Parts: sequence; C-alpha cells; structure tokens
Amino acid sequence: MEVADFGLNDVERIGLQLVVYVNNDYYCAKELILFPHQTCPEHRHPPVGERPGKMETFRCRWGKVYLYVPGEPSPKIHAKIPKGREKYFTARHEIVLKPGDQYTIPPNTLHWFQAGPKGAVVSEFSTTSTDEHDVFTDPEIKRITKIIE
Amino acid sequence: MEVADFGLNDVERIGLQLVVYVNNDYYCAKELILFPHQTCPEHRHPPVGERPGKMETFRCRWGKVYLYVPGEPSPKIHAKIPKGREKYFTARHEIVLKPGDQYTIPPNTLHWFQAGPKGAVVSEFSTTSTDEHDVFTDPEIKRITKIIE
Repeated sequence: MEVADFGLNDVERIGLQLVVYVNNDYYCAKELILFPHQTCPEHRHPPVGERPGKMETFRCRWGKVYLYVPGEPSPKIHAKIPKGREKYFTARHEIVLKPGDQYTIPPNTLHWFQAGPKGAVVSEFSTTSTDEHDVFTDPEIKRITKIIE
Repeated sequence: MEVADFGLNDVERIGLQLVVYVNNDYYCAKELILFPHQTCPEHRHPPVGERPGKMETFRCRWGKVYLYVPGEPSPKIHAKIPKGREKYFTARHEIVLKPGDQYTIPPNTLHWFQAGPKGAVVSEFSTTSTDEHDVFTDPEIKRITKIIE
C-alpha cells in the first residue's frame, strides 16, 4: 500500500491510497482507495521519450467518483474544491462514475478527481506509470510518496 | 459478457466467460469467470506485426486457479485434464493462484489454466488482446465466441 500526499501534508483532503498490482514496460494496473471527498489534484501525463504519455482508464468499483477533464465547464460541480487552491483546479467538465462506470483519459490531458461522500475504490488500467514525470497544476505539489508495509 | 467455447461445443469443461473492460492499442483489462474445473485450453500469443505478442498478468480474485506454464513438470498436478485431450496440455509446471496471488505470462509462452473445485474469478491485465492471433495446441480449437447481451 502506497500513500501519496503530494508533498502538501494534508493527505485527508489532498491525497490518495494506492495498491499497485503490476507496472511493467507495457501496462500498469492499480487499485485506488479514496476517503470521503479526498482529492487527487489536477495533473497530466506528458510524453516521456518516444512514448505519448500515460493513458489511463478509471473504473469505479465502490462509492462514487467525481472526475474532471477539459471541456465545457459543468454548470454545477459536485466536488468540494479544496479552499485556497481553487485556481489549481482548472478542468471543470464533470463526469460522475458510479460502480461499473469507467472513463479513459487520453495521454497528456489535464484531470483531477474527488471521491463522493462515502469514499471510493477505483481500478486504474493504464500504460506504464512513471509518476516522477507527472505535471501538476499546483506549483507547491511534489510527488512524494510514503510506503506503508 | 462474452462466452468462449473454443469451437468445441463443450463449454462447461473447456470454455471461459469474460467481461472485457477495455482493450485499446496499448493495454487491455478483463475479468475472467470460470465454472468449477472449467479449463482455458493451452495456447500462446505470438508476435503480431512489430509487437512481441501479448503479455498478461493473471490476478486471482476469488476461488482458486491452477495455471500451467513451461518448465519442470510438477510431480502432481491439481487440474483434471479433459479426457481424450491430454496430449494438447503439454505445459505441466503448476502455479496455484489463490485470491490476491498473481502471475505474469511472458509473450509467446504456452499456458493453460483450470479453476479449482468452486470456480474462480480472475482479473487479467495485459497488452492489447487480438484473440484471432492466438495459437492453440489442440488443432480442433477455433477461437469462436458467442456474445450474450
């Protein structure tokens, strides 16, 4: 189990718990576990060498997830944007994922997500993960992780 | 839900039920559901064009799976090999997967598997699936599938 606090030391609000099942040169599979209203902050996966950037499919397994991508801003969004950091959440087109729903994020596309009021479990299927290359909108964020055995 | 009977019309013994979540140019994720002692027959995923052949990770979620790959034959194997077809199950190195266990099959490597006495649910994470290129040991097998809505 990995806990990502994104260097903000505010993990219950901005953070993510992950179990990485496999991450090889071709594909990656993880389970993401989120507390109620816990947020994975806005980022994109840029090209790395000759690769086009990580492409990922989120499939909600339990709870509810509010996912935001570029496009027409949704009139009302369900996520509670972390106070004081509103300007670092620029994508405002909302997709709501309930168990059995999924959505694929193309490479190099800004996105962020937040769990609903009961939290969420989300399977992530993707190309290779290279977290150190992720580009976050919030300049304070560093992709620091803690390992819990 | 897809049902593969491999053209043998004996699906309860040799067959597989699948739910494909995603299958794009880079990665694929499926859930495999097997009846008690139902068998996925021996096959390999050869190179396709410039691709090295499908690589796949099986992760057992429920039940038990007996997986067979090339290598030192196991002294006793747990699977019941379908009668009359023994010679088409050549890989006899056994790996037993219980919930939470997983195993990755390299490209172009023979493998077959059978569910334990209660059946099994297995997540498959892999590179792109192109079932029509699969090479089966049993010459009677055709990768014909039925679609059930």
